[in-house]
Amino acid sequence: MNLTHIEHLGIAVKSIEESLPYYEQVLGLKCYSVEEVADQKVKTAFFKIGQTKIELLEPTSEESTIAKFIEKRGEGIHHIAFATDGVADALAEVESKGVRLIDKAPRKGAEGLNIAFLHPKSTGGVLTELCEDPNK
Amino acid sequence: MNLTHIEHLGIAVKSIEESLPYYEQVLGLKCYSVEEVADQKVKTAFFKIGQTKIELLEPTSEESTIAKFIEKRGEGIHHIAFATDGVADALAEVESKGVRLIDKAPRKGAEGLNIAFLHPKSTGGVLTELCEDPNK
Repeated sequence: MNLTHIEHLGIAVKSIEESLPYYEQVLGLKCYSVEEVADQKVKTAFFKIGQTKIELLEPTSEESTIAKFIEKRGEGIHHIAFATDGVADALAEVESKGVRLIDKAPRKGAEGLNIAFLHPKSTGGVLTELCEDPNK
Repeated sequence: MNLTHIEHLGIAVKSIEESLPYYEQVLGLKCYSVEEVADQKVKTAFFKIGQTKIELLEPTSEESTIAKFIEKRGEGIHHIAFATDGVADALAEVESKGVRLIDKAPRKGAEGLNIAFLHPKSTGGVLTELCEDPNK
């Protein structure tokens, strides 16, 4: 599998509005996009640092997996996303090596990427996403 | 503050030996260093992906903060480390903005870096490290 870099880190927050001052005024990063991903019941805010994005995830419903994550563990790092040049091939490869998949096939995520999640039971407790930019 | 990239992600694991097959054979990364950091009571294993390292952290004592983390939350992402060109200046700056510090002054971490941790109470639940390579 050819993973080129960490595409983003997903961080669960209760409120993007309340989290922005830390990322912008303390860390000095710039929020360049706020986007709602309706089918995941989250609002997202993006920052760039080097090759990697930071994606804040605010639940828009109590049914959101992010709301459940925060309820169970508090705010914090939710997942890591690796960039690859082909998510479908990567999924087939990791499944053949015994990794349990959350997504059997790529689907659309934030910013138009093709994405799929691996199950944390197979990844040492780290919720792991694979991403591919279809425009590259 | 000038943060250039994500220097590394720290991931708490029960056993580096048992975690290696996932990182090497599934993700296709190469472990280039295993190092014991005695004063933090951990053994570390490093991988590189793009600009960022992945640092597996295995406790070498039940007194290790990593052992306590795993006991409480299970294996998973433990901290995020940002690269900066001056940790001491960065600490002074974030403290002046109200961030609680774990380390009031830089200390030596793995790979000879100067490091300091910010308290997760001030960073939205994300244990955050600042790193500086003294050889750059």
